[in-house]
Order: sequence, then structure tokens, then C-alpha cells
Amino acid sequence: MLGEVHVVSEPLLHPAREEIELAAVLHALSDPMRLRIVAVLAAGEERSCKSIDLPVVKSTCTHHFRVLREAGVIRQRHEGTARLNSLRREDLEARFPGLLAAVLAGASS
Amino acid sequence: MLGEVHVVSEPLLHPAREEIELAAVLHALSDPMRLRIVAVLAAGEERSCKSIDLPVVKSTCTHHFRVLREAGVIRQRHEGTARLNSLRREDLEARFPGLLAAVLAGASS
Repeated sequence: MLGEVHVVSEPLLHPAREEIELAAVLHALSDPMRLRIVAVLAAGEERSCKSIDLPVVKSTCTHHFRVLREAGVIRQRHEGTARLNSLRREDLEARFPGLLAAVLAGASS
Repeated sequence: MLGEVHVVSEPLLHPAREEIELAAVLHALSDPMRLRIVAVLAAGEERSCKSIDLPVVKSTCTHHFRVLREAGVIRQRHEGTARLNSLRREDLEARFPGLLAAVLAGASS
């Protein structure tokens, strides 16, 4: 099926810092799995989808990362056949000071 | 139509403070209309649906207030035929310190 074609080099679009919208960020963070991903990325390292232990299939994981990227919460880049993910901590802090810290604290409590 | 019956005395269920979930709160706040409602309620006064100037029909307004109530973001009570709404600021602050302030600051920027 066409929908199954996997193009590793698909361009990864990211909103610029000033385009990041509060409602979109809150929506991206409003899912327990995505909160867990963000909490892992908050440690600072770039991580691949599969390096994060989530009880979901790969396509679901890919979906969650896409939602986070499109909202401006994470940055994704290709390295070989892998897609590496990192938190856009500085961009989020510049746009919505204190928000990420409050969310991360709430997620770990 | 049955769906149109309006029972003013319908019980208004609220999660207890300790039952308020981060993902549900973030979801409730992840809509521009609901962010606007919360920003208005943050002024401190109890407000009815119709006293807040929103570009939506009454049923949509009612829906947004229900989502906010069920997530634990607002408290609703009946007064006569009106439903009055207030922000659960202390409960939210106790559960997720700094979150509401960061969201309100982001919503107004």
C-alpha cells in the first residue's frame, strides 16, 4: 500500500520559535505517552524512538514524535536510517517561560 | 428531540484535588477558546457562560466549560437557572505548582 512506503529522508518540518503556539504545545503534552517521551528527552540526550521504552508499537511512537515536532516541542533529525529526537527546551522557555519546568515537575509527581 | 432537553439541576461532577490529572488539565487547556475562558476566570470572579464574550454558540460554550470542569480546571455551581464558573486556582497550584501561571502568561503574550 502507498501508505506503507517509508521514506527515511522525508523532510522534517519544524515551526520556527516565534511560530510555536501555546494551544498546540499544550495539546502535544496532553497525552501520557508524550509526557513520558518529553520527560526522557529532558535529560538532555538525543534519543531515537526505539531507545525509549514505551508500551506502544513503532507506528504509534512515530506518531507521538510527529505531534511533538509539529507543535515545536522537539527537534527531529535524520542520522543514517535513524531519526534522533531532542527537546526544544530553549525555544519553549523563550516562548512560554516556566511552562516546561511546571509540566515536567507535574509529570514526575 | 431528547438531546435538547435541558436539565438545569443535572449534578455537576468535579474531580477531587488529588484526582486531577496532568494530561487531562493540559488537554483541557489545549484549545484557544478554553484558554480564553480560563484567562477571563483568572480575574477571580464567578462568571456564567454567556457573560464571557466568545464567538461560539451556547452549546459549544457549554461543552468547553464541561471539559474544563471534568479536568478539574474550573468549578461549576448552579444558581437559579444559571451555571456559575470559577477557576480552581488553589487546587491546580497545589497539584501542579507554577503551571497555571505559566499558561496564563503564555496565553496573554
